[in-house]
Amino acid sequence: MVLKKGDYVVLFAEGKRHLIKIKEGYFHTHKDFIELTELEGKNYGEKIQGKRGCDFYILKPTIYDFLLKVERKTQILYPKDIGLILLKLEVGEGKRILECGCGSGALTCALAYFVGEKGKVFSYEREEAFIKLAQKNLSRLELQERVLFHHQEVRDSFEEEEVDGIFLDVKEPWELLPASHKALKGGHPLGILVPTTNQVSLVLRTMQELPFVDVEVWEILMRPYKINPERLRPEDLMIAHTGYLIFAKKVFSL
Amino acid sequence: MVLKKGDYVVLFAEGKRHLIKIKEGYFHTHKDFIELTELEGKNYGEKIQGKRGCDFYILKPTIYDFLLKVERKTQILYPKDIGLILLKLEVGEGKRILECGCGSGALTCALAYFVGEKGKVFSYEREEAFIKLAQKNLSRLELQERVLFHHQEVRDSFEEEEVDGIFLDVKEPWELLPASHKALKGGHPLGILVPTTNQVSLVLRTMQELPFVDVEVWEILMRPYKINPERLRPEDLMIAHTGYLIFAKKVFSL
Amino acid sequence: MVLKKGDYVVLFAEGKRHLIKIKEGYFHTHKDFIELTELEGKNYGEKIQGKRGCDFYILKPTIYDFLLKVERKTQILYPKDIGLILLKLEVGEGKRILECGCGSGALTCALAYFVGEKGKVFSYEREEAFIKLAQKNLSRLELQERVLFHHQEVRDSFEEEEVDGIFLDVKEPWELLPASHKALKGGHPLGILVPTTNQVSLVLRTMQELPFVDVEVWEILMRPYKINPERLRPEDLMIAHTGYLIFAKKVFSL
Amino acid sequence: MVLKKGDYVVLFAEGKRHLIKIKEGYFHTHKDFIELTELEGKNYGEKIQGKRGCDFYILKPTIYDFLLKVERKTQILYPKDIGLILLKLEVGEGKRILECGCGSGALTCALAYFVGEKGKVFSYEREEAFIKLAQKNLSRLELQERVLFHHQEVRDSFEEEEVDGIFLDVKEPWELLPASHKALKGGHPLGILVPTTNQVSLVLRTMQELPFVDVEVWEILMRPYKINPERLRPEDLMIAHTGYLIFAKKVFSL
Repeated sequence: MVLKKGDYVVLFAEGKRHLIKIKEGYFHTHKDFIELTELEGKNYGEKIQGKRGCDFYILKPTIYDFLLKVERKTQILYPKDIGLILLKLEVGEGKRILECGCGSGALTCALAYFVGEKGKVFSYEREEAFIKLAQKNLSRLELQERVLFHHQEVRDSFEEEEVDGIFLDVKEPWELLPASHKALKGGHPLGILVPTTNQVSLVLRTMQELPFVDVEVWEILMRPYKINPERLRPEDLMIAHTGYLIFAKKVFSL
Repeated sequence: MVLKKGDYVVLFAEGKRHLIKIKEGYFHTHKDFIELTELEGKNYGEKIQGKRGCDFYILKPTIYDFLLKVERKTQILYPKDIGLILLKLEVGEGKRILECGCGSGALTCALAYFVGEKGKVFSYEREEAFIKLAQKNLSRLELQERVLFHHQEVRDSFEEEEVDGIFLDVKEPWELLPASHKALKGGHPLGILVPTTNQVSLVLRTMQELPFVDVEVWEILMRPYKINPERLRPEDLMIAHTGYLIFAKKVFSL
Repeated sequence: MVLKKGDYVVLFAEGKRHLIKIKEGYFHTHKDFIELTELEGKNYGEKIQGKRGCDFYILKPTIYDFLLKVERKTQILYPKDIGLILLKLEVGEGKRILECGCGSGALTCALAYFVGEKGKVFSYEREEAFIKLAQKNLSRLELQERVLFHHQEVRDSFEEEEVDGIFLDVKEPWELLPASHKALKGGHPLGILVPTTNQVSLVLRTMQELPFVDVEVWEILMRPYKINPERLRPEDLMIAHTGYLIFAKKVFSL
Repeated sequence: MVLKKGDYVVLFAEGKRHLIKIKEGYFHTHKDFIELTELEGKNYGEKIQGKRGCDFYILKPTIYDFLLKVERKTQILYPKDIGLILLKLEVGEGKRILECGCGSGALTCALAYFVGEKGKVFSYEREEAFIKLAQKNLSRLELQERVLFHHQEVRDSFEEEEVDGIFLDVKEPWELLPASHKALKGGHPLGILVPTTNQVSLVLRTMQELPFVDVEVWEILMRPYKINPERLRPEDLMIAHTGYLIFAKKVFSL
């Protein structure tokens, strides 16, 4: 693929990834810099040399790279959690997935990517600024068309019915359990992320009264290693917590 | 969706999931049983009562359920690892993904599911028995068509070129790094799973000599919680280890 | 040290540790057995051969071995947690430590061992059967004299004053915070173990109203590795949870 | 206990612990400061007010506090690891414990504290600067007398015989296994810390050839929680790695 103005690339330089759009101007690292227009006409996998001699490798930006680099005004969902959500909610080709609380849109981007061309994401968010930010992040991936935003605070029900999966990333998800139940297809999955144990307890307590079964709570830890083959060991620090993931499936009655 | 003979469902009974195909015969749990033909004509989300009064909830089997329940003769890849692989290798609609070492076919199923109708998976395996098992597991998901198996031991090269991503799940993945480099598109990702630290070191050491950059090593831990809201706490036991995940991207020269 | 009847040894055979008292009779493993009186006159570090040819290594039983092998009727505290408690409560020579809830006496044994000859442990327990069990476990270590048991349910206060440290291992530790405050020396540490997050919240909420500062909550994970040098990797399973450790220090007023 | 010049206290202010020696001069936090001589005549558990109105709580410094605050020029052993070492090596009253590689002396301090008045620690270190630093750290705890330092690089043997336990914290501990075997009592424990998996493999490989049994490898993770009872959750970051702990016991022959 020959790169042209407007394309995104990952520049890998001095051991770090940088997600960059090709346009007029310069890109600077600590030690070196390049002119971005030099990227035009190159291919993924090539390298260009900085003005001071450092190597800048041109890599295909994956969905993983886009997720880590979303422009953010909120805490975002991380790949370690998104990966499990994709599997538990079966976010595949053609699926209609509803999310409430798009925040900066990291999960929105992942959902939109994995539902494919024929799928659809319905995203509810009460803060207009977050919708705009999520749209901006989606536009980098050219996925805006796959997402229908609802700028509203949900109380009793969502507008959609018979969706294939729902994910809630809001402060009080227990209040949205009846609406989620209404919108879901029978036997289909609901997912929730909350950062605190108090919220997990509240969700579980509310869920017990409603027709949801197959309830699970997980936390996922992702531990990085230094890549020296002769001195293999984990990094000194790791992320200790993002949130607890709760999953359940809707049934018609208990 | 009205269920008919040949369909798969998850039966949720006595706190456990069972992946079942609808056919003649019975399904037994510890305490109760049902006649499977009773499932015909039902919908996901409904329940039927066992002969001794227990509830059997009929749930949509997700890709997550299929992955956990693959028929296996080998160690399989688990959802915690597969989720990250999907993101790092960008296993989306239309992608051409190559794997070497299909084992029982858990990852093969996930790859085939997520590349979608227009995508393709190329799977190399030297044990014929494993290919047959993987095909059986794929057939439950009706995904056989998306996978091209190569029954061969790879040495110097794969048959495909310009693939979008490669995953190696073999004993000596360092021997396949040159072949993987050849088969990958420039700037595109390679993933590897190995169970031991010695293998991680060997992969990293070999990789240093080859044009791969953006190398990462991760391990993922998935910790389950008991779902009692008044006594929230992790389960007593968890899986301590499946393997180390190594990722890198191909460049044309270092 | 020449072993004699009544002494404890660890027999290490077929990859496992067995804590054994030397007396008349036999000791059986899966594959082999020995006559225990054969141990008399031997020294730690020697081995004897089983009747079927297996090696039985005679090892010094450490406090770690005794803690793992306490006879138990309850969940016990594990070394991973006890190790931190020893440091946070400064359970050293000559200290006067109070515990409430001795259970099977694992922590009681550790406290009694580490306070030394001049130290003292005060142990409150409402179940007489547990006191007897704890005493039995202490007697293996010949540490009964260092522990004063109170068979009573504590409400308003402990009998002791000016103790150097307190550990609570009871269902509702928040009810004992005022009594603990009364019994502790100024500026000295309190420790608590609870298995659920709900209990952690209740302890923290109660503590906020009382003159305790320097509050910390920890959980400790201990991950075992297989010991094959050519295939180094963690074991498949690990203990995912024992409890949350809460620590604080008493001040006279907030 | 009435505090006087030369005593150590922990000052707890603005949510942080500070280990301080009482002397002439001032102690500053971000927001406030006190005159240290104001501490004279106070007791642990009291508070004094800073010049700008903040509270400074006077706490008993525990061995845990001293270990975290050792003056350091090297990576130090952390309480999570030291706690387990105390139990595995049975570092109790009257024991004779040998360590090789004192570094900044954190473990040396813990060993010296827990062997008590009648115990002894033998510490080998080839860098004189480290011995001086360890002695300085010991002197804060008034434990210098309990430690005999050997300023030398060990090759074939240690000077002591029949010690109760040995801990190695050096780069190439496999080279000291024969010397450690010679110095240990039969059936008694050896402990080792190494940061990398390559070193673990090397130790295990060497150990296989020597009369050591009951070999274990552990890693310990300590995860901190935020202490808000209404929003209980782990901290964002945690230490991902300090080192691998290896333990074994000496036998006379395999």
